[in-house]
This record gives sequence, C-alpha cells and structure tokens, in this order.
Amino acid sequence: MEKIAVFPGSFDPITRGHESIVHRGLSLFDRIIVALGENPDKKGYFPIDQRIKWLEEVFQNEKRVQIKVYHGLTVNFCNEVNASYILRGLRTAADFEFERGIGQMNKVIAPSVETVFILSYPEYSAISSSIVRDIHRHGGDISAFIPTSLKIS
Amino acid sequence: MEKIAVFPGSFDPITRGHESIVHRGLSLFDRIIVALGENPDKKGYFPIDQRIKWLEEVFQNEKRVQIKVYHGLTVNFCNEVNASYILRGLRTAADFEFERGIGQMNKVIAPSVETVFILSYPEYSAISSSIVRDIHRHGGDISAFIPTSLKIS
Amino acid sequence: MEKIAVFPGSFDPITRGHESIVHRGLSLFDRIIVALGENPDKKGYFPIDQRIKWLEEVFQNEKRVQIKVYHGLTVNFCNEVNASYILRGLRTAADFEFERGIGQMNKVIAPSVETVFILSYPEYSAISSSIVRDIHRHGGDISAFIPTSLKIS
Amino acid sequence: MEKIAVFPGSFDPITRGHESIVHRGLSLFDRIIVALGENPDKKGYFPIDQRIKWLEEVFQNEKRVQIKVYHGLTVNFCNEVNASYILRGLRTAADFEFERGIGQMNKVIAPSVETVFILSYPEYSAISSSIVRDIHRHGGDISAFIPTSLKIS
Amino acid sequence: MEKIAVFPGSFDPITRGHESIVHRGLSLFDRIIVALGENPDKKGYFPIDQRIKWLEEVFQNEKRVQIKVYHGLTVNFCNEVNASYILRGLRTAADFEFERGIGQMNKVIAPSVETVFILSYPEYSAISSSIVRDIHRHGGDISAFIPTSLKIS
Amino acid sequence: MEKIAVFPGSFDPITRGHESIVHRGLSLFDRIIVALGENPDKKGYFPIDQRIKWLEEVFQNEKRVQIKVYHGLTVNFCNEVNASYILRGLRTAADFEFERGIGQMNKVIAPSVETVFILSYPEYSAISSSIVRDIHRHGGDISAFIPTSLKIS
Repeated sequence: MEKIAVFPGSFDPITRGHESIVHRGLSLFDRIIVALGENPDKKGYFPIDQRIKWLEEVFQNEKRVQIKVYHGLTVNFCNEVNASYILRGLRTAADFEFERGIGQMNKVIAPSVETVFILSYPEYSAISSSIVRDIHRHGGDISAFIPTSLKIS
Repeated sequence: MEKIAVFPGSFDPITRGHESIVHRGLSLFDRIIVALGENPDKKGYFPIDQRIKWLEEVFQNEKRVQIKVYHGLTVNFCNEVNASYILRGLRTAADFEFERGIGQMNKVIAPSVETVFILSYPEYSAISSSIVRDIHRHGGDISAFIPTSLKIS
Repeated sequence: MEKIAVFPGSFDPITRGHESIVHRGLSLFDRIIVALGENPDKKGYFPIDQRIKWLEEVFQNEKRVQIKVYHGLTVNFCNEVNASYILRGLRTAADFEFERGIGQMNKVIAPSVETVFILSYPEYSAISSSIVRDIHRHGGDISAFIPTSLKIS
Repeated sequence: MEKIAVFPGSFDPITRGHESIVHRGLSLFDRIIVALGENPDKKGYFPIDQRIKWLEEVFQNEKRVQIKVYHGLTVNFCNEVNASYILRGLRTAADFEFERGIGQMNKVIAPSVETVFILSYPEYSAISSSIVRDIHRHGGDISAFIPTSLKIS
Repeated sequence: MEKIAVFPGSFDPITRGHESIVHRGLSLFDRIIVALGENPDKKGYFPIDQRIKWLEEVFQNEKRVQIKVYHGLTVNFCNEVNASYILRGLRTAADFEFERGIGQMNKVIAPSVETVFILSYPEYSAISSSIVRDIHRHGGDISAFIPTSLKIS
Repeated sequence: MEKIAVFPGSFDPITRGHESIVHRGLSLFDRIIVALGENPDKKGYFPIDQRIKWLEEVFQNEKRVQIKVYHGLTVNFCNEVNASYILRGLRTAADFEFERGIGQMNKVIAPSVETVFILSYPEYSAISSSIVRDIHRHGGDISAFIPTSLKIS
C-alpha cells in the first residue's frame, strides 16, 4: 500500500526548514502532500495564492510532492486524501510541547492517522515563519531563511 | 476552619481534565468553588450561560462544589469568598512555567492565598479547551474530551 | 479524618527551600511527616544521623511536624503511616518533569495517595541540596541557603 | 527497498511504552530490529539474558520484529544491519531535549540514517524503565507497567 | 572603542526586573540605550509617552543610560546607534526558547551584533509586564513590581 | 579597569562549541581565562594534561586568552584571578535550567561576579563533550565536533 503523508502548515512563507523536512520525509514516504491550511478567520501576511505559488515553485521537480489547500481539521483532510501519516519537524522543546497536545488528541479522533516527527537540522532550528514575517515587515533581508530557489522582495 | 478552594478557568468548554481535578481536589478541600472568570474584552467561543449550565450539570451531585462567575483578579475573588486556596491542575512543563509566573505574583499581592497543584492524569494531559474548541469549530467529534454526562453538538 | 502528608527527601542537607515548603504546607494539612528516605546503596554527603538532628532542630517548635526515616517506596511508607498525601515543592520546569513521572506512576501503584505541589518562593527557587553540598565541599559559605536556626560548618 | 528501523534501548526492563512504540512503528517500517545496547561498563539491573528473553517473548508473534544485541555506536549498528532509520518514542520535553542532541550528532556521523519519532500514548508517557526498576527493587508491583504477556516477580 | 548595548522592549510598563538588568548591565557596557520599540499595529496598554516618561524618571541619575524610541528591526536600530550588543534578561526556560529563536536569526541578518544575556535575580523572575498590566487593569496594587521610584496609580 | 572573564569547564574534550564561545566572548572582554576545573573525585575520560595541551593549541594565537587549571568553587577562582565575569554558552533549555541554578547561587556567595551568557551558534547547539566522548569511546570519528586545528585519534 502506498505510504502517503500530509505535511500541514500555513507556509506564510515557506522556509528552508520546511523545505528540508519535506525532502528528508521523501525517504520515509511514497508521497507527501504539502497541505496549506486555510483559516477563514486569519488572513495571513502573504496572500494565499502567493504562498501556494511559492510552494509549487520550490517542489516543482519533486514528482512525489503535491501542493493542496485544505479547510477544517487536519485529520479529516488526511482521511479525504487517504494519508495515514502526518509529517512534522521538531525544532525546540516548545515545539514539542505544542505538537504533543495536538498529536495526542488527533490520535483519539482519528486513531488510524499516525504523526511522525523528524528533527530539524541545527542550522534551521531557529527559523520560524513568524520571525521571517517580522523581518520582512520591517524591510529586512529574508533571503537566508527561505528556499534558495525563491525570491521574495 | 473550613478549607475553601477556588478552581478558576474560562471552561470554554469544561473538559474531562477539569472535571477530574475538581473531583480529586475534594479529598483535599472542604468546598471547591468552580469560578468562571468573565473577561468583558474576550467573548469566548461558547456563550457564557451555556458554559455555566454545563458546569452545573457536571457537578450537580457534588454538594461541596459551587459554580460562580467572577470578574477581575482571581486573588481578589478568593478574598471575597473566603477561599484560602487556588486549585490548579498541571499537565505539561509549559503549563508549569505559565502557572509559576501567575502563582508567584499572586503570592505577593495576596500572601494569604496559597496555590495548590495536582497532576493531571496522563490520559487527560493532552486535553485543552482550546484544542477542543478547534475540533468543534471544524465539526469534529469532541465527546471523548468532555465529561461523559455532557452532550455538546 | 486527620489529613496527614509525607514530605519525602534525602535532606542532605535541609535547605531554606525545604523549610519553607513544610511551614506553608501546615496550612493545608493537619500533620506533616518529614520523611528522610534512606538508600542503603547511596551513602550521602552528610551522615544520616546529622541530617536527622538538623531536621529535628529546625522543626522542634512545630508540634504538627514529625521527623521519620524510611526505606523502600515512598507510597508504601505513606500507607504505613496513614498519610493520604505526598507534599512536594516545585522550583523549575525540570523539577516538574521529574515529579510528574514519579507522581503519575505513584498514582497507579497507590491510587489513594495524592501528590500535592506548591510553588517554591522565588528567592528559594535556585537552592538545591546538591549545589549546597558542592559549595560546602569546597569550603564555601552555605549559611545563606540553610535554615537560619542551623549552623553547619 | 526494504525499510528497516532499529529501535535501540537497554530495555531494563521492557515497558508497555516500548511495546506500544514498536507495534505502532510496524505501520511505518517493513522490519524493526529491537536492539539491546550492551554497555560493558554498566551492569544493568536485570541480567541481560533475562532482558532478551522478555523481548523475545513480547514480540514472538511479530514476524517483522527481530531482537538483537549490539555494542558501540547505534549508527554503526544501523549500518551493519542495513537499517536506514532509528525509531524513538517521545514522552516528555526532557526526552526531546536529550534525543535532539543525540539525533543531530548522529546525523553528522551517519547522514544516511534518519531518526524518526512518534509520540508515546498519554497513558504510557509517565512510564520509564528507571522508575520501574526502582519500584521492583523495593518490592512494589510493576505489572501495570510491563507488557501484559510478561510476568516479572 | 566604546561598548554600547541596546536594551529593547515595550516597557508597558517598566518593571523592577527591567530596572535591575540595566543597572547590572552597566558593569559590562560603557553605555546602555533603553530602546522602546514602537509597533504601529499594537497600541499597548499605557500610552507610549507615559512609558517613556517613566523610563526617564527611573534612569535620570544614570549618565550612561539613554532612553530612545525605535521602529522596525532591533538589529537595524543597533546599527544606527553604533551598538554592537543587545542586552537581555533571562527569567525562565520559556524566555530562553523565545530569545534563542530571535537571537540566532539576528546573528544571521546582523552578524556584528552580539546578544548578551544575564540572569534575572530570583525575586524578579516571576515579574512580567503582561501580568503587571493584568493586575493594574483589575485595580490591583502593582507597586511591588515596578521600580520603587515610580508611582503608577 | 580591565574586564576579565573566566570560561570554566572540564573540556573533556574541547569542542567547536567551546572554541566559538571564547572567540565571540573576546569582543566583550579584555581577557578570557579558559579555566579547566579539576575534580579530584572524577577522573575524566581524556588525561588532564592532554586536555590542557589541546586548549593551548587551539588558543595559541590568541594573546588575550589564557589557559589555567583550578580546584574548588568557580567563584573563588574568579576572585583569585580578579575576574568579574563568568562566561557561559547556552545551547538548550535544559542548559539554561542548569545554568540558572548555578548562576543564581553564585550571585549570592559572590555578588561581585556576574555570569554572562551568549547563545551557541545553531550548528554547534547539538555538540556536547559527553556525546563526543561516547563517539570516541566506540571508535567513531569525532573530527567534525572538535576544533579544526586539533587531531584527536
């Protein structure tokens, strides 16, 4: 049976950390769906169409990676697309505490979906989309934090 | 002297974790006041009347548990109702860090009120009202996380 | 029914932090048994007789505090002395993680014994017996960390 | 290509937490090698032969699980047995901090080996072999913490 | 070369913890710029003019401390004022996790600026501006948490 | 007045992380004393003479760095060598919790000595001497973790 994982996030914007987790996850899964969760109540910083375009650009040469938008619960989306795994990167202990809460409750409402974690590379462990947005908002240079193939000005 | 504890929260909604802490706290205190803190600036997800009704339902057979609404500082409310204790459940290290800040500052402004902690049972340690709301908002089934006596649809 | 708590530790040596937790715990319990756990495999730094003498000195005026030595599991000792509570102080997130493991397993092997936590006062939150021993071993002055009524040279 | 994972540990003794991680890991990997790391300098509590016998008993009906003993670095053992993955369970933030150090350094000395984490079930998150040993040493009942198929007296 | 440090914050309001870090930082740096970061999107609780006046009052006798308002990235402001250091106080592990993310990304976008941390004194480690605001909002007495030279009613 | 810092450790062995902290610390201090704490009760893995030789090799071109061995309390050694600062690198939240305990107690027994922290670079944040020793003990290659100028076989 094909092993499909969902890699969920808001990707506002995608960072080198995200890119790295997906590439490494491909050794573990047959297919990875990079799933941009759209939240009608939270507008985001970059427009959603732009965020999707960037995702498509970054993974254009990866046949086994698909980009999708979803609404609602991540585990429901997993069931829709026949994914049995959620892939997550772990950077810090705070990340872990947050992910544990979500992961353990997901396991109750969708026992067949397993959340799988891999460790961020150390050089990416400080990168978060929220700090990247903050730097961009103030006119700082974010090129060191986003995938090398992207240009965000 | 009667030992009275306040168990404060927004209970939006009450979870099995809350219910369990109150029941176990009854071995320690003569009376527990489940105190719903109303914040005029934050509307909450479930209407406040609904939340109170659920609390009353869950604890209807506990003579030693009362449900009250309060405004302002928790320690001031403790003084009003002659409670010398605040009861809190601890689930995670992040919980602890948060509670420590509040607890230590409370001790300065109201030295006679002692905050007392007990550990969540492991099976409830992942349950938080905010994740429960999130599941409910997206149409997921929350029955595994709220008291068995409640029906929230 | 009398509320009896055990306050377990190796008290090698007793610190101001320990002393403070016991005094504050007396508002919560009718009686507190300060229980020095003797571990035949670990000799300790100060002789056990000395440690007990210090405990007795510090609490000599507290009628509701008793000093005892025990072996084996803390929960078994609680059952022997009819204590339904274990009292613990929490200083740091690392403390919490450690206590949670012990506390949750204790709850399984002795469901009737409840572990109750109170927060260390900020000014005692850095004091640990192991650092105190280290300072003493190197001839440093430990008087700021041990109860004011004690003289350890 | 066959996906092989190593699940390393000292299993002194195996707990329900270990058992659960292996069973869940089988959905992710084709084969899991439960690898008991023998450390000549550290004797352990239960004899190594006994620990292996217990592992074999617990997983006797899982064709895809093998039990092995190894010495030296875990990543070297992975290379010997053609395993591209190390499987680990995460219980607490302290676990995570520890695993991150090991995992990130392993990634440097053996870039082809990926460490994969899954979350302990909440009900197993407090169980550690070291606390189990402590209970056993003092004559406590450990049956609630070890696999149901085992009898350790 | 003169050693200049920026001590950034929103100081809404300044606490005893902030005051203490600046005074201790003066042993390390020749000059400290207390820099109030103005965020046009976040109004704050106390008016910005009031916050600046309090800062000026607290440090009026320190020739080596200057008060400034800035917009945008902290590291850009450091470059403008020729500061090679950012001074930060650390209270809790959660503080540290937060500061690490910011500090490591700052190091990438402005490698010449070094972030330097000192530990909060234990008695100030529970004080945060956000809890102080909360107490003030509800009419509580905040005088124990703000510099002794200030009167905020 | 000359600003002198002590950088204490057991350097068993020195890592790239240590080397980096000292080099960066030189921007903050006039002189740094790399102080190898000798503990008569703990033999260490590498012989102490070897560890000193490595330190001397790594910092041979830094006129402002001195290598010394000390016994007893670090703060006492600071006083002997007229150092008003202890320099420490922070890698993880666990590091922070540990350092806070030591740092805050040091501040009590030697109020004139300030502990100053800088953040490890992300790429060094996973490196610890204890994991390096473990790899070396098992014949692994440690060259990626120790200063490039060293050869340890």
